[in-house]
Amino acid sequence: MDFFDAVKARRSIRKYTDKPVPREVMDRALDAAILAPNSSNIQAWGFYWVQDPAKKKKLVEHCMSQSAARTAQELVVVVANPSLWRKTNPEMKKFLNTLPKVPTIVKLYYDKVVPATYGWKIFTPFKWLIYNLIGIFKPFMRRPATCRDLQEVWIKSAALGAENFMLAMAAQGFATCPMEGMDEPRIKRLLRLPWSARVAMVISVGEAASNGTWGPQARFQRDWFIHYV
Amino acid sequence: MDFFDAVKARRSIRKYTDKPVPREVMDRALDAAILAPNSSNIQAWGFYWVQDPAKKKKLVEHCMSQSAARTAQELVVVVANPSLWRKTNPEMKKFLNTLPKVPTIVKLYYDKVVPATYGWKIFTPFKWLIYNLIGIFKPFMRRPATCRDLQEVWIKSAALGAENFMLAMAAQGFATCPMEGMDEPRIKRLLRLPWSARVAMVISVGEAASNGTWGPQARFQRDWFIHYV
Repeated sequence: MDFFDAVKARRSIRKYTDKPVPREVMDRALDAAILAPNSSNIQAWGFYWVQDPAKKKKLVEHCMSQSAARTAQELVVVVANPSLWRKTNPEMKKFLNTLPKVPTIVKLYYDKVVPATYGWKIFTPFKWLIYNLIGIFKPFMRRPATCRDLQEVWIKSAALGAENFMLAMAAQGFATCPMEGMDEPRIKRLLRLPWSARVAMVISVGEAASNGTWGPQARFQRDWFIHYV
Repeated sequence: MDFFDAVKARRSIRKYTDKPVPREVMDRALDAAILAPNSSNIQAWGFYWVQDPAKKKKLVEHCMSQSAARTAQELVVVVANPSLWRKTNPEMKKFLNTLPKVPTIVKLYYDKVVPATYGWKIFTPFKWLIYNLIGIFKPFMRRPATCRDLQEVWIKSAALGAENFMLAMAAQGFATCPMEGMDEPRIKRLLRLPWSARVAMVISVGEAASNGTWGPQARFQRDWFIHYV
């Protein structure tokens, strides 16, 4: 499907039909998700396709049994997992060493800056203080300093991936609904996620029922959101 | 362009050519951005296309003059602006009243839940406490309770829109680079954003130079990110 047609076709659907979603359709969308851009290419995201019937039932309950979850054929939990950098940063360093022309500053970034940013959690208050002190005198990246900042960064990247996933489903003729109305601590326990991980959203998938939306897509005055400065 | 081709074509580009980006190409991508799903359809996001030469120069400095910003033809600041709900929630209520069949619970949501969630900031500690107390006994949406939670929600939605924007540029043959390495407080002052707003990222736009990337796209072991549960 044409890209812009997929963007227009994507609507958040509250009710699905009984039509199953083929495995290859799901996999293709999951593969598209992890091609999204992400912070420092550290890829600290997770896409959990919950298939086990007992777990799926629990997950629907943790989405407050809303109809978008209850009637869904498939459910994917989109996770931000800041601790994944410990696995991916060494891979990134190995990868850079295979390339002929990489600026020294990029290698330095993965050698020094990434560990200082994603690790060294005990220094959080100092990082915050130092970043903001430097920032008084010259432009400086103030975030991420705290653990919450790190979660936020990975929630942002996870959302970029989630949008790829949802558009990929639309491009293949299936519908989705991103749900933030969910019980995050319970979902974290269900998936045995580490303490520092966050649930960005749960995405339900299926074929849109004829009454899957309440009306046309509502978008308000363009100049409230798009600004020419 | 085919959707999956656009996903594959999108790479984060660090160096651009001198080729200008036509206005209609930018506008088409901005229009695609605001078709993304977003929290409660409150659309509390902002896409600031910075065109004024003096402001653009400042913005490049606030992106620490990195080459992805320095060599860019255009720059768009992606903003999360939680206070926009005061403008959009009344519109959403008006819109729902024009529809023939909307469940009462949906109208109630925009009448009561949205103001309680996005407003009532003085009650933040109580909200946090009550949500988590209820959550002990049954699945309950614990967030957003605090101001930071609200910013996080809107950063997430802004990221969904940002991904639409970047893919739309790729689908039109242009390249982008999302930058989180920027000085958020300075950019907020430059754009005169309200106190509660956040800068999710700055996206640079242009035609990719032949040395715009250091190598092929690096994605690590699929099963670190995609999980079948």
